[in-house]
Amino acid sequence: MHTISDYQEYFIDYLSENTTQKEPKNLYEPISYILTLGGKRLRPVLVLMSCEIFGGSYKKALDAALAIEVFHNFSLVHDDIMDDAPLRRGKETVHEKWDVNTGILSGDAMLINAYQLFENYEGDIFRQLAQLFSKTAIEVCEGQQYDIDFETRDDVTIPEYLTMIEYKTAVLVAAAMKMGAIIAEASDNCRSSVYDFGRLLGIAFQLQDDYLDAFGDPSTFGKQVGGDIIENKKTFLYLKAIENGDDSLKKQLEGLFSLHPENPSEKIQTVKGIFETTGAKESTRQEIEKYTKMAFDVLEGLSISDDKKKVLETFGKQLMNRTV
Amino acid sequence: MHTISDYQEYFIDYLSENTTQKEPKNLYEPISYILTLGGKRLRPVLVLMSCEIFGGSYKKALDAALAIEVFHNFSLVHDDIMDDAPLRRGKETVHEKWDVNTGILSGDAMLINAYQLFENYEGDIFRQLAQLFSKTAIEVCEGQQYDIDFETRDDVTIPEYLTMIEYKTAVLVAAAMKMGAIIAEASDNCRSSVYDFGRLLGIAFQLQDDYLDAFGDPSTFGKQVGGDIIENKKTFLYLKAIENGDDSLKKQLEGLFSLHPENPSEKIQTVKGIFETTGAKESTRQEIEKYTKMAFDVLEGLSISDDKKKVLETFGKQLMNRTV
Repeated sequence: MHTISDYQEYFIDYLSENTTQKEPKNLYEPISYILTLGGKRLRPVLVLMSCEIFGGSYKKALDAALAIEVFHNFSLVHDDIMDDAPLRRGKETVHEKWDVNTGILSGDAMLINAYQLFENYEGDIFRQLAQLFSKTAIEVCEGQQYDIDFETRDDVTIPEYLTMIEYKTAVLVAAAMKMGAIIAEASDNCRSSVYDFGRLLGIAFQLQDDYLDAFGDPSTFGKQVGGDIIENKKTFLYLKAIENGDDSLKKQLEGLFSLHPENPSEKIQTVKGIFETTGAKESTRQEIEKYTKMAFDVLEGLSISDDKKKVLETFGKQLMNRTV
Repeated sequence: MHTISDYQEYFIDYLSENTTQKEPKNLYEPISYILTLGGKRLRPVLVLMSCEIFGGSYKKALDAALAIEVFHNFSLVHDDIMDDAPLRRGKETVHEKWDVNTGILSGDAMLINAYQLFENYEGDIFRQLAQLFSKTAIEVCEGQQYDIDFETRDDVTIPEYLTMIEYKTAVLVAAAMKMGAIIAEASDNCRSSVYDFGRLLGIAFQLQDDYLDAFGDPSTFGKQVGGDIIENKKTFLYLKAIENGDDSLKKQLEGLFSLHPENPSEKIQTVKGIFETTGAKESTRQEIEKYTKMAFDVLEGLSISDDKKKVLETFGKQLMNRTV
């Protein structure tokens, strides 16, 4: 077995080999730009790792890994337009560097290019990868729509929120791992277990992202701490505080989440205080642990050797400790 | 064999059966909206017709026909955003009725849904349809990008223009016909001939669209006559006039194509005059005939019975006389 940084290196090499400049350049340059902006390449690494865990060579999984990364970047390009985001990984977003039309059209081409990468697989593997990809891609769109809808709804329930993050984030992680298993021709049982492992870990990861946004260490979190509070984003912490809080705290929190103060530091402190007094902080921590434990339980039941389980477990632990 | 209006009816029935309201409704309502706005359904009709011409039942071709129509409407939704178009078929465009973000995301979901429709085909047919679809979809994106690029370029050549309309319009017509042939399991030879027939006829149709925009009968053309001239669009007529005209006419035409007069009727008349005196009108007419003849020559060589050739010939003639 290789290490995570091996897989990152193999993937980045493959990505460079496969980012050629084609015509029309106004369509293809933005694609190379976004694909080479960096990032941890977690999703493609998972495709390669999963393939080797089930006995395949990571080399066979490179095209599927690239498809997953191209799709992920397609969704970033279109989401950044929708969110009017100026920056991505500290650099200008595509629609900012070029324009919105370029972002739309280059994104469309990336979605199609992702499908084309599966053409490098034979017969039934091609079909299974393409079907899983379509199912996942539609769920990601649905998750994004729910996320948009939730901004203007004040009756979002916690199960609805969990479905949203599952679709928007977790299913792509799950599909990445299942694709590795498909390419390695693992059993149906293994395929669906590794999918569930990825899905549950993906949910835990997103919940942790909500948690760290308020309670993370600014020096290691990587994003602006309090960003969700500034943007009045109804995260798991917020929904739990609304669920747990008494009428007066609920009213106060709803009031705070209708403001956009020039200097947000007092708002951030007050909101974090409410997250603590309502027990939302603790409930969120427990929910993260619940999903992480469920993921590791699924892993326990996988019929692979212990050293391979160890690889996935280490990956999961590193991910939840944010060292990858 | 059925008639064109039979196929239109079968297709519209199938479309209604398949437009169900799903959640999240802000994602799926715009999709039903655009798909039921109407139109002549030429592309899906071609899938059904082509399948029957090569001995298959049109029923087997309904999912591919729907995929082609869903893709075509995806491209309309995204193109309408890029063109900032308020109306489509006399009704509000998706981004106008909802908003730009809804147009982007619903369009993305349609592109994925189009791929999913091929999942109703077995093994190799699925693969061939999906591959042809990806190739075509990428070409449509490239064609759209060339079209955008040409707006700000003043050195577009006629071969470049022909490639642009081939990609933006003709390859989807060609792919629609080839998909029918794939589903009917026609020979490779038949598949590639019917693709060429569609491609050449598609180019002829688009050139005719350029021609009719200036010289069509306002009562039958369906669009505003002179629309391309108002928008300073470098169509085949314009490029031919630039190629053929002497320096003074060229200069005059370039001058006119930098204006946006309040009342465009004088500009339209002058430009049409230049299209006539430079021989661009006549050259365009000849080019349309050249491509139409090439299409019918390909048809002649197809190994299908004469009555089936007749069906395609009638369709081609009706299309070029704009009675379908």
